[in-house]
Order: sequence, then structure tokens, then C-alpha cells
Amino acid sequence: MVVKGRAMHAPEASVAVKTLFNPRNITVIGASSSLNKWGNIIPRNIIGGGYKGRLYLVNPKGGEVHGLPVYPKAVDVPEPLDLVMMAVPAEKVEGALEDCARAGAKTVIVIAGGFSESDAEGKKMEERMVRRAHHLGLRVVGPNTMGIYSAPHSLVALMPAVHPLPGKIAFAAQSGNLGTQMLGWGSHKGVGFSRFVCIGNESDLDFVDYLEYFAQDDLTEVILLYVEGFKDPRRFFLAAKEVAAKKPIVIYKAGGTGAGHRAASSHSAAMAGDQEIYEGMIRQLGMARATTTEEMLDFSDALVKLPLPRGSRVAILTWGGGWGVVTADLCERAGLDVPPLPSQIKGRLDDILPSYWSKGNPVDLVGVIDINRHIESLKILAACEEYDCIISLGTINANLSFLDMINSELYPLKEEEKERMIRVLDEVAARFIETALEMMNIYGKPIVAVGMPQREEEYHRLPQGNEKLCIYPNPERAVRVMSMLAQRGKFIREKQARFG
Amino acid sequence: MVVKGRAMHAPEASVAVKTLFNPRNITVIGASSSLNKWGNIIPRNIIGGGYKGRLYLVNPKGGEVHGLPVYPKAVDVPEPLDLVMMAVPAEKVEGALEDCARAGAKTVIVIAGGFSESDAEGKKMEERMVRRAHHLGLRVVGPNTMGIYSAPHSLVALMPAVHPLPGKIAFAAQSGNLGTQMLGWGSHKGVGFSRFVCIGNESDLDFVDYLEYFAQDDLTEVILLYVEGFKDPRRFFLAAKEVAAKKPIVIYKAGGTGAGHRAASSHSAAMAGDQEIYEGMIRQLGMARATTTEEMLDFSDALVKLPLPRGSRVAILTWGGGWGVVTADLCERAGLDVPPLPSQIKGRLDDILPSYWSKGNPVDLVGVIDINRHIESLKILAACEEYDCIISLGTINANLSFLDMINSELYPLKEEEKERMIRVLDEVAARFIETALEMMNIYGKPIVAVGMPQREEEYHRLPQGNEKLCIYPNPERAVRVMSMLAQRGKFIREKQARFG
Repeated sequence: MVVKGRAMHAPEASVAVKTLFNPRNITVIGASSSLNKWGNIIPRNIIGGGYKGRLYLVNPKGGEVHGLPVYPKAVDVPEPLDLVMMAVPAEKVEGALEDCARAGAKTVIVIAGGFSESDAEGKKMEERMVRRAHHLGLRVVGPNTMGIYSAPHSLVALMPAVHPLPGKIAFAAQSGNLGTQMLGWGSHKGVGFSRFVCIGNESDLDFVDYLEYFAQDDLTEVILLYVEGFKDPRRFFLAAKEVAAKKPIVIYKAGGTGAGHRAASSHSAAMAGDQEIYEGMIRQLGMARATTTEEMLDFSDALVKLPLPRGSRVAILTWGGGWGVVTADLCERAGLDVPPLPSQIKGRLDDILPSYWSKGNPVDLVGVIDINRHIESLKILAACEEYDCIISLGTINANLSFLDMINSELYPLKEEEKERMIRVLDEVAARFIETALEMMNIYGKPIVAVGMPQREEEYHRLPQGNEKLCIYPNPERAVRVMSMLAQRGKFIREKQARFG
Repeated sequence: MVVKGRAMHAPEASVAVKTLFNPRNITVIGASSSLNKWGNIIPRNIIGGGYKGRLYLVNPKGGEVHGLPVYPKAVDVPEPLDLVMMAVPAEKVEGALEDCARAGAKTVIVIAGGFSESDAEGKKMEERMVRRAHHLGLRVVGPNTMGIYSAPHSLVALMPAVHPLPGKIAFAAQSGNLGTQMLGWGSHKGVGFSRFVCIGNESDLDFVDYLEYFAQDDLTEVILLYVEGFKDPRRFFLAAKEVAAKKPIVIYKAGGTGAGHRAASSHSAAMAGDQEIYEGMIRQLGMARATTTEEMLDFSDALVKLPLPRGSRVAILTWGGGWGVVTADLCERAGLDVPPLPSQIKGRLDDILPSYWSKGNPVDLVGVIDINRHIESLKILAACEEYDCIISLGTINANLSFLDMINSELYPLKEEEKERMIRVLDEVAARFIETALEMMNIYGKPIVAVGMPQREEEYHRLPQGNEKLCIYPNPERAVRVMSMLAQRGKFIREKQARFG
């Protein structure tokens, strides 16, 4: 098939992107023994990441870097190249392309800045570089990119030393530092990625090319985009319309204000576009719009882990009254309903809770310490057809008050008794999570938990199985996630009603 | 002075609250040797907190708890009582008051629930209890309260086992679990408190009484309130008007929606009131309104640590472009300005930054690794009269990429060389913070930092002096804090213009 405006033998975008994320080998041009040069750092990150394919290094000087031989030219590499990462300055990129093409490369990542994001001259240099690449049968990622990550190959071809967690989110970012920061946050928060690309200046391969790859990628369940502006918004929205109907897309649109727009144009050479038009399109196509940087991860992670609610009716289960009030407010403001408890549910909760429980929704467990009762209450609410989803506050950390007590010097127990009690508490906490996962499975309703740890050690003392549940440290994040899921659910239902 | 409707000898609220936060002794009525009873847990928390006064325990059964003698009656305690904490069920409270009064007590904390927050009968019991207390010359905190904290006396008279950090924020909360959770978050985030009270049902001492104490308390610089509703909004706003003009008040108003209102009335028996009227009053009186639970701490902490900006013009310093775009957007949406760089500032930055720097505001340091240049850029922006405040992104964690590199197995350095390099990096990072604090001091402009750690270990590897600066893990929190400070600054300036 002829690709318009490109030489016949330049691979199609789909082929080039497939190679990008699944290369049999990667070659770093400009390998260096200077410890603080990208030609040294990038191979170090690739080796450190445990890349399963073969890494080759090229530099006219030859020698050895990180114990690997350095080939003077790409054509000296003993097998045909797949993916190339150019760690040479902007003005040397064009000249290095021919060697790569002759060595069989398909896709080239150009990290250097100083192209179209800089000035008119840089723009010309970029256009010339891409023309030359196409002529030689190469497709280009970047320039001005920090690289890529691909989970199935453990390929961390990135400038910063991040350690992404493998997972089911594919991420295309129009900012390298923001994108790699998200990978880092993800590792910290237990949010994993299937693929990541820092799109750079989109001189050749662009948002749509990556989006279309993610759409058909079996390892990807959710697509995340950080966007400052699209080169061709119409082309993007046409493509996204198809994709978003099947796979959830989470989008963060930056550069929507005057100040942000000015910053974006000097950063990624992007045209930020009219924010309102963007927002309209995002809503209309059923994409989830992250409005904070944290929501990029929260939304993507929740869309991987949780079922979509069939409506917007929330049951709130709380260990303490104040958090119930706050969460009820948040739900109503976020467009969710907090309907009263049906009387038969009240009766069933009466049987297991103290007489002074709240008798309403939020269901206030009024500090009941026995987590078995939290578990029973959760089951009753999950089974109730009047609710589409559940937010559970406090239980995840409830046993920690006890742990603290047990560990107190003033608590007169023998070591082995203490250990036994701690084990029991941990088991009950783990059973709460197990039950939540089981209820989600049986009733197909999302359940999110708010843990609210208080002490340093609690942040890392989560019950077994926690990585499968969405647990937030405050109710705001839980409610925003639930509201997003409800909107996505509504979009899918309406779509099915129209076409199904 | 005669207190209206109270017996002559009941102390004035100001005296009772002073005793509450500065008792020479505290007596727990209902002390218990049962490990899971509040009569056991509360004394344990008081001892564990290191209370500097004297703790007495009372129970008709006598005996010993936590190695302390248990007196059969309050009058048996060998000195006049100051503060009493009643750990007995609701129906026993009234009967226990007389013994306390005869023993000299001034202020009584009643933790039991089951009073006016429960039902009409509980309401009657509460009214009776307060009448009896006043008649006996006692003032009441609660009922339905989790207790208090007072930093100068290391007094942790609370039901949950929290470990508050001493500091300059006084906090009155209409929810015990939310309030104590904030103390716990504070310990985790380095936010300290001077005083804390869970106000409970406000049967006697109320928001205004605590507010007035905090207003004249030298240890308190900022007042934080979590409010579901005021019993007498007019009285509160009149008092708050005086206070907020001098000491900053941060307020979180819960129960503003239908669902939240319903939850609040079953929780704290509070009348949530008309949210719009509340919001209008909060704005008009120059209080800072927290809209998320996290903001309660962020706002309070920033008001303790940072000067108020003289205007709304922000300079943004960023280590990477994408974060600059995001932050510029956030600023403009939050009512802050991001004015362009004056040309002489551009010139001065040209001298220290690479040719391809952004040449605008945000000042994009385009990944410059030498933190000395970050420090120089910060100085230039701080000195510039065109800006009222600064947000610095990324620098706080910039040296961590290096640390990671140095610690890599592929980095061929001897142990002592590595250690020396790490020391140098840590010193430079600490100097950035030192410079920020110095600049705030010289120019009286707030500077906040966004650290954005990526890896577990970085969360605890902050440079020396970090506890004096406000450092956030994302730009959203930094911008909301700066916007709040700008509003407070404007309020104070306008106030001075009118009266000064």
C-alpha cells in the first residue's frame, strides 16, 4: 500500500509502531563511555530494565561500554536492526540515518531537542530529517522524546532511570518528564503499564498511530493520553471515536488556558487548540477526562480493575460519621446519588450493628471494631438492588488501631499471644478485601475503599490482595473515580441502546 | 461576672477552656483493667503521649490500672481535680458529676454517645446532664466526643491511639474520627498542632468558646475548623469576624448537600444550614475555605510557614516542560496570573541556562542537572519585582536521578567515591531549600516546591531543612495553596486600606 507522501519502501505506521514496541533488538547510536552522557545512560537503563531482546551499541570510536562491544557503524552489527535509538545531537541525526537504514532498521527514536520546538531553523531541520528518513525507508519517533517502555519485552529505553511496573495501561505522553513521572508514580502506587511512548515533536509517527496500535494490542486494556495539542485534531477525534467505544481512553488535556498555551507552544511545539471544543469532543466520545495529574493514574487503574456501575446510586459504608458526611457531600456534587436505605436493609443491619448505628445511607458503623461486622454489612449492601456501587471508608485501616494497642508497652501480653492476635487481625482485614473482590465478581458492581492510614508503618501494611482493589487515602479520589466510572457506564449503555 | 442561665459558681467558658487545654491534672472516671474498654485505652493513650501533668484514675472497684492506683471516688484523689474525662456510659454520666464537682473539677469531657445525636430521649438526657453540671459548677465538652490534645503539656486525651506532632495549628472538629485522622495525617506529613478538640454535640462549650481561646493563645498561629453546622451561626460569624482579621482561620464546611446534610444530622446532631450563606460569610470574613480534606492540612500548614504574597503574579520554575504547561493552566484557572518574563530577566537567565531554554514564564530549566543553576534561577526570579510568588517544580528531586545512577551496578566507581558524590548532591539539594527560605525572608514572597518523587526511597529522602518549606508531590496542591495565600493577602490588604 502506498503511504501518501512517503517513499514506497518506508514501512506503514502500524508496522513501524509494532516494531517500536516489539523489537527483536535495539541499537543505541552514539554510545559513550562518559558516565553522564545519554549514550551511556540510556544503554544502562536498557540493561537495568532487563531487556529480553538484544542490545547493540554504535560509535565510530569503537571500544566497549557496560561490557558490550561498540560497533563503529550500524552496518557492523551482526544482525539486521529493528529499533534504533539516536543518542546524538540534533545536527548529527540526519547524517546518521543512512547507516541505520542500510543496517535494516525500521523505526528510529530521536531524543535530541533543538528541532521544531526551538525555532524556525529547527523546524526546517526537522522536516529535512523526516524527509530523508522516509526516503531511506525509516519511520521516526520524536524528535525531542525521552523514549519508550514496553512491558512484555522489559524494554526500558528511556532517558530517566525509572522502573515501570508491568500492567495493562498503554500511555502516550506529549511530555517526557511528565510521562516518565507517571511511570514512577505508578510504581509507587501499584499502577502498571503495558506500553509507554513519549511522542516528542510528532515529526512523523503521531498520537493517532500510537492510539491505533494500543487499540488492537491485547496486552492493553486502558489507553492513557497526556495531550498538549493535536497536529490534526479532526484526524485524532475520528480515530478516537472508534477506539473509545471499545477500549476506555483516559485523557489529560493540558495547555487549555492562555498561560498554559504559551508554555505548551515553547515546550512541545503543540497547538493547544480551543479547550471548549476539546472538552466537548472528549465528552461526546465517552473518554474519561482526568482533571488532575493524579487522576491520570487513578482513572486508568480503576478502569483496569473495576466493573462499570449500572447506574449512579452509591451506598456508603463508613467507620466514622464525619467521613460519611464528607463523602455524601462529595458524591452529590459529583453527580452521584446517595439514596436512603430500603427498610429491609435497615432491618438486616439492625441485627449486626449496635443500636446507635446511623440507620441511614451513609451506613455509619459507629466505630464497631469487629471487622466481621464490616464484612457482613458490605455483603448486605452489595446484594441490595437499590445500589449500583459501594464506597467503603475506614475498614481497610480499622485493625491498625488494634495493632497499635497490642504493640503498646502497656498492653500486658506475652510475645506469642501478641503475634497470634496480629495474625488474626491481618487475616480478618484480608478477608474484607477478599469479600469486596468476591462481591464485585458476583454482582458486577464496583467497590472502592478508602484506607486513610495515620502512621508511617500503616502506609505499607495493607492486607493481602490489596493490589486487586482500588484503595485511596482520601474520599475525594474515591468519589471522583466512582463518578468517572458511572459516566463511562452511562456512555456504554446509551451506545448499546442506540446500536444494540 | 454572672453567666446568663448558669449557676453563679460555674466557671466562665474562657476559664473552662483554659483548664481544658492546660490542666495540672486529668482524672479518668471509669478506669478499667479490661484491655478493650475506653477506661483502659484512654489512660494508656495519655501515658503513651507523655503527659507532663498528673493522671488520676477513678473506679468504685479500686485496684490498679497501668501501674497506677485506682481511687474509688474522685474525692479520694489527693489533690483538687482540674480536668475530668468521663469514660462511663451515657446513663451514668449525670450521676458521676457530683463526685467530680466536690473533688474540685472545672471541666468535664464526656465521651459517651447516645445523647442528642441519637433521639429525643437522648436529647432530654443531654439537657438534664448539662443543667446538672452547671448547677454543680462544671462546664462540659461533648458529649459524643473523642477528646482533646494539647501540645505544651503533651496531653493526648483521645480515644484513638494517635501521635500528634506538636505545632502551631489549633483545630476544633465536629467529628472525632475525621479530626483524629487529620492529626494522624499531620504526623505523616510533618504538620503539627498546638491544640485539638473534638467538639462532640456542643451541649455546653461550643465552637465559639474554642475559637476565642485559640484566638488569644500564643502557641496558636492558625485556626482550623471542621464544621458540619453551627448551633448559632450568627454568634459564630460575629466571633469569627474579629478573629479572622488577626489570625488566619481555615474552615472545611461539610454537610452542604442534601445527602451530606442528612448524614450530618444523624452524626453530630448539627443543622447544616444553607451552604451558600455559609460560603458567603466565609469569603466575606477572609477565612480560607478548604474544599478537600487534604486542603485542611495544606492550607493550615502553608499559613503557618509562608508569607502572604502582595499580589497574584506567579513565576514558575520547572525542571521539565510538561509540568510547566500543567502548572500554568492550574494557576490561571485558580485566579493567579502567569505574566511573561521581563526582558532583563530573560537576559540574566540566558547567561546561566542552555541556549534552548524556554525563554518565557514558566522558566523551563530543560533538564539542566546542575542544581547550582536552579539556585541561581530561583534567586533571579525571587528578586524580580514583577512577581509576587514562586512555584518551583522538580528541583527538590532532581538530584535523585543522579543518586540512582551512582548507585547503579553499572556505574564504575569505588564505594568512597560514590559516597562523596552522594554527599555533594545532598549538600546542593539542601542549599536549594536554604536559598528558598532565605529568599522568602529577604523578599517576603512565598515560595513553594513540588518534589514529585518517583521511587519509594525518594519519599523519605528530602534535603535538610525541608520541614520549613512547603513541598508538595503534585502541582495541583501547590497551586491551590498559592491561590489561597493570594486571596488571604488580598483580604488583609483591603482591610488595611479601609482601616489603616
